[in-house]
Amino acid sequence: MGLEQATAKPHEDLARHLSGKMEAVNRLIQTRMASRHAPRIPEVTAHLVGAGGKRLRPLMTLAAADLCGYTGEYDVHLAATVEFIHTATLLHDDVVDESAKRRGRPTANLLWDNKSSVLVGDYLFSRSFQLMVETGSLRVLDILANASATIAEGEVLQLTAAQDLRTNEAIYLQVVRGKTAALFSAATEVGGVIAGAPEEQVKALYDYGDALGIAFQIVDDLLDYQGQSQKTGKNIGDDFRERKLTLPVIKAVAEATDEERAFWQRTIEKGDQRDGDLEHALELLRKYDALERTRLDALKWAEQGKVAMAKLPAHPVRDMLTNLADFVVSRVS
Amino acid sequence: MGLEQATAKPHEDLARHLSGKMEAVNRLIQTRMASRHAPRIPEVTAHLVGAGGKRLRPLMTLAAADLCGYTGEYDVHLAATVEFIHTATLLHDDVVDESAKRRGRPTANLLWDNKSSVLVGDYLFSRSFQLMVETGSLRVLDILANASATIAEGEVLQLTAAQDLRTNEAIYLQVVRGKTAALFSAATEVGGVIAGAPEEQVKALYDYGDALGIAFQIVDDLLDYQGQSQKTGKNIGDDFRERKLTLPVIKAVAEATDEERAFWQRTIEKGDQRDGDLEHALELLRKYDALERTRLDALKWAEQGKVAMAKLPAHPVRDMLTNLADFVVSRVS
Repeated sequence: MGLEQATAKPHEDLARHLSGKMEAVNRLIQTRMASRHAPRIPEVTAHLVGAGGKRLRPLMTLAAADLCGYTGEYDVHLAATVEFIHTATLLHDDVVDESAKRRGRPTANLLWDNKSSVLVGDYLFSRSFQLMVETGSLRVLDILANASATIAEGEVLQLTAAQDLRTNEAIYLQVVRGKTAALFSAATEVGGVIAGAPEEQVKALYDYGDALGIAFQIVDDLLDYQGQSQKTGKNIGDDFRERKLTLPVIKAVAEATDEERAFWQRTIEKGDQRDGDLEHALELLRKYDALERTRLDALKWAEQGKVAMAKLPAHPVRDMLTNLADFVVSRVS
Repeated sequence: MGLEQATAKPHEDLARHLSGKMEAVNRLIQTRMASRHAPRIPEVTAHLVGAGGKRLRPLMTLAAADLCGYTGEYDVHLAATVEFIHTATLLHDDVVDESAKRRGRPTANLLWDNKSSVLVGDYLFSRSFQLMVETGSLRVLDILANASATIAEGEVLQLTAAQDLRTNEAIYLQVVRGKTAALFSAATEVGGVIAGAPEEQVKALYDYGDALGIAFQIVDDLLDYQGQSQKTGKNIGDDFRERKLTLPVIKAVAEATDEERAFWQRTIEKGDQRDGDLEHALELLRKYDALERTRLDALKWAEQGKVAMAKLPAHPVRDMLTNLADFVVSRVS
């Protein structure tokens, strides 16, 4: 962490480099999340949007368009689109997960009710849809429609896969693409498409977003077992307690003895957890070197993101995106 | 009812006339609601789609395209699109209303859980989005994006407006457009657009769907206060007990004395209901002739639908759609 904290963070470099465009994105978000008729809508969205967050996804769309030499204005529409899709999925996720906190504040479902979260999420999704139609690009619409389907399918898959010991690394990867990577890859891909970039660059932008999203989620899942709670705001083993099968455990389950398998069945599948179970789980993860192997997977995905980025022309933004891939895994490297 | 029951029902005439196309729609729905990866998705959708329903919305899209001489195949995509949007909103509505039954069967949120209903609804919405993108018509996408926003905004508006005595007929109308009419009018309008119909016909198709949807919902709200439960499957006064402000009560509230206003405040706004309150509410509706005036509103909207239909060229489907407008209000005429 030391080095990264000393130098500027790459997403902050991006935000600075693209600050004019980001202001336009924020204005567009403010305008379009409003509702003339239903005051509950701006209440809920202002709560969520006002809480900030890094605005990483819209930044990636703007960065991709900039990197490909785009001089028009639709990158702003598309950046607002991906932020609306992201916000809509957060609202629905908090209902599904019965979450009480998001970005350090009480969630909308807690402050208002589940109804408001479901319906305002639907509203933001339909507003994102209007925004992307305005770009007039059928290819952009196709990419975002497919990303939406991948996101929704991944979320449903997670409902059944998260507590099923048959979930292997391929299924985990698909859930992760739905949860995180599909919107990252769509965000960068549409930036290239709207700029009219050559096919191989569009493909490289997709690959970069996909790899970055996967690395990002694997790091998140790894830190759940080895992070320090003051840094992550989470307690070690939350995923274990919530019976969520993530990559470290999937690796340990794949090599489990019969006895160990029975342990995972009891604690994850049946949810019968007792004192000392988390400690035993951590022991099993150590036994199979599962945390270290998970960490290497994250580094491999970050590396793939950098390889994809190298296919794009030299540009200050390309360097920032390359640094971003390193930064995402810096918490575990 | 006598006359309508003796002759065929107009939506059954439409279904017969368009049976080849409807089979194609049903096949497309079966194919597209599937998911290779998440088995929970076909479970939930098969439960809902299998329960049938009249498939009124896809029929209206096919009818509009047929009436305008369309010979291509994208009407099938658009019909499946509107059915998916409709099914997605039903799934979310049942979560929001905490409903236990839909089409005479237990709801998905009861059989599985709210999570599945929220996420499978999102999945169907994104699948509808893919289907409409395949038509390659930006105008169709624009219409459906706007309809989606109207639907979601109307649903959120209803959350706050339904128990607020300040809700007037204009707000009621907007909620009704969101709940019902926006998808009806989009269904007919896109049928005309995909057929390349002249602008005045596209406008007439929109007006027809809008008027039909509003008439349909007003009749529903009226029957809640005067229907016979064996016909409607509902008990008289359900909306009153659930503190839903609908058109009959809005009309009575508009002319209420101070004392009557206090009654509505207690029963609807505060939800403090006692024995005899429903009877008193019905008395007040009679005092201001609110049910009869609501009935006349429904007839007026049905008439507007017929006027719009008269702007379209002579065609057997035009007659069926005209009859459908009569049929929708036949339960109260």
